[in-house]
Amino acid sequence: MSQGSSPPLRIALAGLGTVGAGVVRLLAANAELITARAGRRLEVVAVSARDRNRDRGVDLSGFAWEDDMVAMAGREDVDIVVELVGGSDGPALNLARSALAAGKGLVTANKAMIAHHGLTLAEAAAKSGAALKFEAAVAGGIPVVKGLREGTSANRVARIYGILNGTCNYILSKMEESGADFAETLAEAQALGYAEADPGFDIKGVDAAHKLAILAAIGFGAKIDFAAVHCEGISAIRAADIAQADALGYVIRLIGIADTEEGATGKQPRLLQRVRPCLVPKHHPLAHVSGPTNAVVAEGDFVGRLLFQGAGAGDGPTASAVVADLIDIARGDVSPPFSVPVDRLVQMAPADPGDRTGRTYLRLTVADRPGVLAEIATATRDAGVSIESLIQKGRPEEGGEVLVALVTHEGPQRCVDDAVALLDGSDSLTAPPLVMPILKA
Amino acid sequence: MSQGSSPPLRIALAGLGTVGAGVVRLLAANAELITARAGRRLEVVAVSARDRNRDRGVDLSGFAWEDDMVAMAGREDVDIVVELVGGSDGPALNLARSALAAGKGLVTANKAMIAHHGLTLAEAAAKSGAALKFEAAVAGGIPVVKGLREGTSANRVARIYGILNGTCNYILSKMEESGADFAETLAEAQALGYAEADPGFDIKGVDAAHKLAILAAIGFGAKIDFAAVHCEGISAIRAADIAQADALGYVIRLIGIADTEEGATGKQPRLLQRVRPCLVPKHHPLAHVSGPTNAVVAEGDFVGRLLFQGAGAGDGPTASAVVADLIDIARGDVSPPFSVPVDRLVQMAPADPGDRTGRTYLRLTVADRPGVLAEIATATRDAGVSIESLIQKGRPEEGGEVLVALVTHEGPQRCVDDAVALLDGSDSLTAPPLVMPILKA
Repeated sequence: MSQGSSPPLRIALAGLGTVGAGVVRLLAANAELITARAGRRLEVVAVSARDRNRDRGVDLSGFAWEDDMVAMAGREDVDIVVELVGGSDGPALNLARSALAAGKGLVTANKAMIAHHGLTLAEAAAKSGAALKFEAAVAGGIPVVKGLREGTSANRVARIYGILNGTCNYILSKMEESGADFAETLAEAQALGYAEADPGFDIKGVDAAHKLAILAAIGFGAKIDFAAVHCEGISAIRAADIAQADALGYVIRLIGIADTEEGATGKQPRLLQRVRPCLVPKHHPLAHVSGPTNAVVAEGDFVGRLLFQGAGAGDGPTASAVVADLIDIARGDVSPPFSVPVDRLVQMAPADPGDRTGRTYLRLTVADRPGVLAEIATATRDAGVSIESLIQKGRPEEGGEVLVALVTHEGPQRCVDDAVALLDGSDSLTAPPLVMPILKA
Repeated sequence: MSQGSSPPLRIALAGLGTVGAGVVRLLAANAELITARAGRRLEVVAVSARDRNRDRGVDLSGFAWEDDMVAMAGREDVDIVVELVGGSDGPALNLARSALAAGKGLVTANKAMIAHHGLTLAEAAAKSGAALKFEAAVAGGIPVVKGLREGTSANRVARIYGILNGTCNYILSKMEESGADFAETLAEAQALGYAEADPGFDIKGVDAAHKLAILAAIGFGAKIDFAAVHCEGISAIRAADIAQADALGYVIRLIGIADTEEGATGKQPRLLQRVRPCLVPKHHPLAHVSGPTNAVVAEGDFVGRLLFQGAGAGDGPTASAVVADLIDIARGDVSPPFSVPVDRLVQMAPADPGDRTGRTYLRLTVADRPGVLAEIATATRDAGVSIESLIQKGRPEEGGEVLVALVTHEGPQRCVDDAVALLDGSDSLTAPPLVMPILKA
């Protein structure tokens, strides 16, 4: 295969934030080996961003500058558009649609856009025969989109789960290490740059939910359904919960998990997608994942359990994933982004999480007075929750409240939710109960 | 993309051991989803094995039987040959060469054949334009060949290392758990089917060395050079070493590791490939890998550290990797097996392990008599080894020997080797010294 004869892959790059600048830097730093691996040169021909004059620490003088991203995508000398603008809608979506409609391939790191509009974008790509790739949208540099799409392609996937948000994992593992509470640890993470000034998307689990929806669509060959993800964040977790979990043999991690269950006869299986803090057994590989790391487990019927782990964010890892997609495209890969052709993606109805059985950690904070334990015992009995262990901390917390932690026997999630509903509004409770599933290993 | 219009990918399967039967079972069990993901049907047309009459628990009645594998590869109705015969040379190699010469794609799980003949096979594949794939040759079902070839394709790889042999990892983690010695644990592993009756290839590190040579060739774009792998097995490791390592904050794992160093001006970098038992810090992800699991770490200049982990052997995982390769080929992937075109693979001279610096664990077993410690101290001093800590076990081992364990400061490996050479032949030593590098995290 002579490389002189292959024309370069001509790239237009929209968005020159840290990731965009990282892509420019990477393409320059590793140009020679990228050419050898791609079979041809990857050549940036044009760039676009909001502010032309900002110093980004990279040399842009060799590229045409376009103020209008859509016009840039339409240039005759552009084969592929790299979208690093961000935002689920607006300019990014507009650009993506124009590029695909014009038959240009699209590479994006935009998890929100793929989670919301991945299906219509895949349809547009199929229509024009263009490539659509988004490895960088999930778990930074970890090749888990490829791992699921191609590595496990021979398998019926049973379950996909993992640590999908580095900010939350940093906070939870820091709390574990220091014994500090959530608010304090968040502030520290913000000061160190591990959490945004406005951390809502991360700590409420929305960012992890975007990634989970993408992985579920690929793994199960389903039409992406971000709206169906059940999502809970980590802000209610206290230092005392982490200490309790530790005493019971667990660590707490924010876990995104997707699996399916049989539908009614003749119907597609139902899909359950949840992002929730979970108790993870200490012997489980995910229990050892600390700091801003991401890790994804895929369980297949023949391959068993696979784990992919690495840096979940950052300009270097994200640029690595963007350029890997470009190299795949340069090598001629235009296969379906969600692993099966878009017209074969199935519509999976959302499963009811209440039907799922498992063991659950339930923590209540109650007033330090007689009768409260009986109230809890009655509620759990009436809801049909079978208790495996109950721990009441001897010493009242600050403000005179007492922490009661329960671990249930295996049972339907619905019963635990019912017990919480029965206790809801009781003036014995000083804060809303915290329910965390125990991850099945 | 309509699938009715695409012709099936027609497969000839040579070798019907547990993996071959697994491939037949997998293709039948997941036929529908494989067709959707591959874009066309994968259809076994012919099979071949030594014994036609053996019951393999799978239905072979739909396939033509061929006694002659090479004739099977030449059939006009065959697109791809799957080689699961095994053995680095002989019938497997003969089959592989004939298939590629005839322009048929080749998928193989044969690590020994690729380690020894991967370069000439890749040349044959390039010549005829045929696909050559061997995901199943490294780490069973873990998509690490793909991960390196495509997932990290944008990176200059700094280091590839991992746990590449499930038998050794099972034995070492069992010894850790039980405190038993090597021979006893090996016998137990054999009884349980985790070690072969003839375990030499595994416990001497040869199997791991095959895999390491393959990963190094892909990661560094080098001509595969199995002969240059420095290889040591695990049979000299005692329960006492594991206990010492534990006390120092380490576990012992058999690690295959490949990295490069600058060559002389104008020369290619030199490549160092080693398979050795190492001390792994307990906080390192590989320290948590227990049982017959494989795990590979790839460090890239932009992506940072990636970890791939899963079952390293077994018919299900291996079949999963074989069929993933077939699906890639069905999707049109004929890109270079070692990630760059074979005529661009570079010849890397082997690096001298003596040049490498690091901390080292050195264990001596000595006669319980005065002066021995002075002898050791003199030898290490004369060799220029700087000692960080020295532990002499108070209680003599069986047979009156005493165990002395040293950990060196960071220094050249050569000095440790020199110290061992100075002590060699001393009648104070009751067994050859054991040298284990401490893995740099």
